[in-house]
Amino acid sequence: MRTIDWVDGVVEIIDQTALPDVTRVLRLSTVEELVAAVRRLAVRGAPAIGVAGAFGVALAARQFAGDPDALAAAVDLVRTARPTAVNLARCVDRAAARLPEGSDAVLAEALRIRDEEVDSADRMGRLGADVVTSLCGERPRLLTHCNTGALATVTGGTALAVAFELHRRGVLAGMIASETRPLLQGARLTAWELDRAGIPYRVAVDGAGPFLMARGEVDAVILGADRICANGDVVNKVGTYAHALGARAAGIPFLVVAPESTVDLDTPSGDAVEIEDRGPAEVVSFHGVASVPAGADAVNPAFDVTPHSLVTAIVTDRRVIRLDKGETMGSYRSA
Amino acid sequence: MRTIDWVDGVVEIIDQTALPDVTRVLRLSTVEELVAAVRRLAVRGAPAIGVAGAFGVALAARQFAGDPDALAAAVDLVRTARPTAVNLARCVDRAAARLPEGSDAVLAEALRIRDEEVDSADRMGRLGADVVTSLCGERPRLLTHCNTGALATVTGGTALAVAFELHRRGVLAGMIASETRPLLQGARLTAWELDRAGIPYRVAVDGAGPFLMARGEVDAVILGADRICANGDVVNKVGTYAHALGARAAGIPFLVVAPESTVDLDTPSGDAVEIEDRGPAEVVSFHGVASVPAGADAVNPAFDVTPHSLVTAIVTDRRVIRLDKGETMGSYRSA
Repeated sequence: MRTIDWVDGVVEIIDQTALPDVTRVLRLSTVEELVAAVRRLAVRGAPAIGVAGAFGVALAARQFAGDPDALAAAVDLVRTARPTAVNLARCVDRAAARLPEGSDAVLAEALRIRDEEVDSADRMGRLGADVVTSLCGERPRLLTHCNTGALATVTGGTALAVAFELHRRGVLAGMIASETRPLLQGARLTAWELDRAGIPYRVAVDGAGPFLMARGEVDAVILGADRICANGDVVNKVGTYAHALGARAAGIPFLVVAPESTVDLDTPSGDAVEIEDRGPAEVVSFHGVASVPAGADAVNPAFDVTPHSLVTAIVTDRRVIRLDKGETMGSYRSA
Repeated sequence: MRTIDWVDGVVEIIDQTALPDVTRVLRLSTVEELVAAVRRLAVRGAPAIGVAGAFGVALAARQFAGDPDALAAAVDLVRTARPTAVNLARCVDRAAARLPEGSDAVLAEALRIRDEEVDSADRMGRLGADVVTSLCGERPRLLTHCNTGALATVTGGTALAVAFELHRRGVLAGMIASETRPLLQGARLTAWELDRAGIPYRVAVDGAGPFLMARGEVDAVILGADRICANGDVVNKVGTYAHALGARAAGIPFLVVAPESTVDLDTPSGDAVEIEDRGPAEVVSFHGVASVPAGADAVNPAFDVTPHSLVTAIVTDRRVIRLDKGETMGSYRSA
């Protein structure tokens, strides 16, 4: 089953807000439905929302054929549904570039993007597994943050694809999944994927990660990225930076796995990235159970910036960049 | 209202598991009820559970008068209700030392311990406020973790007593309260106390703290301790260490406020402290709403260890120890 796909003229997604309790498939047939699904994180993960963006343009091309102004507005609505991950804007632009050729050409481009993401997950898994084995030896115990599995891509995943590949090779000792407040993508989604894959895992609160590293329970941290800047700074789910500080203090590798479509050479450093604040509601309610004084305010950055100096290596679908050895993102540009 | 007190022959506590939704007072008349309340964190915070321990011995002295074996077993039950905070064992020992003089002498000692904690909070607030002002100047923006307010002591608090005092002086710009998973003492209890005090505050998820510091939104981190070791290592609520790493990286002060009764010169360093693991249930359920795959395991250290090298200063009810200037815990022993 794919997290997102084009089926009979509509976009089908697994509703990630309902997992793990319910596996529900949503059929999105309009741009508005798709944008709402992206905004409320029914589909999430940088690669997956990139594909969602391309499919959104394909929906727009059909929905607003013959009305160029409405079409342009719809494409812009999709492009700006969320601000932080570069994949969304990039995939929207790729699909939108085919608009002059008609809606079938747009759809063909969107399907190509989907297929590239599937291939890309496969390659990241293999490349990343080689890197982990070379840095940590046999039977590594890995800690991951947020969800970077099949649910964040189309199939397979990014950082979690590496865990799946190590498990396939029979060398993975186990995983710690940090729960990833406020939306608990680790506790809900990563745990669900690890459970289905038969990988031994334990959930930890986000604040425990650096201490578990200090106590010697983790051999490497491995996670994804929403955007990788030209200087190697990594923009990813809030809590990533704290885990990077923990890994540095414990002297263990900190590995970032993400497709080339996440690399944004037009963004010089993390300082230049708009960090989405998703407002207080996600923080002050716990799955609908109110617990904080009425009217409490919150600061809720959805992402944070990990400086490149704390990153051991970045693994993409094409290459391994050893930032710890002075390698740089270079001028490589994805297709 | 006091968090814990002796009223008409029983121990009264505010049930902290019900806050902020309900303010419920529990009357504990047996050792078994008191130990259960300590274990399920109905009363919590190192100073408060120290007082609870002393009151527990007073209850035991009445409940098991004339049965020395049962009395000794009851005192041991209280002493070991939770393993990490040194206050509990220390206050139990102080009260138990009066057992040969009879139950009234035990109660008198327990009441003395309670009164000392009330005075102590007052002194910590003033000393700590002076330290914050000298390090951060006017209008500091502080981040705190867990709950160190009146609810963690008898009245006043430890680190939060400093915030109250700064607010009284009219110089506090505002607070960030990290929510403190798994039991959300920050979001539930600290937010409740700040709200009642009229101090402007925002709640943040635990993983956001270090990033908010990097982004320049915090002037100092101020929090409590469950045990301070002879070398200055600080054992405190899990997540403390990650915040200390964040403060160090951001170049801002990291301040620990705790009474002398928390200082344990018999524990050489953090390595020697037993860290309580409270089991998976607290992590895998969110206020009773299941969200993690059935049967999921968790690693749930309730505390972590912050090495003394990351601590700027420790403020007690008697003194300020500037660890950043090479000062040490010394041989000072509390009464």
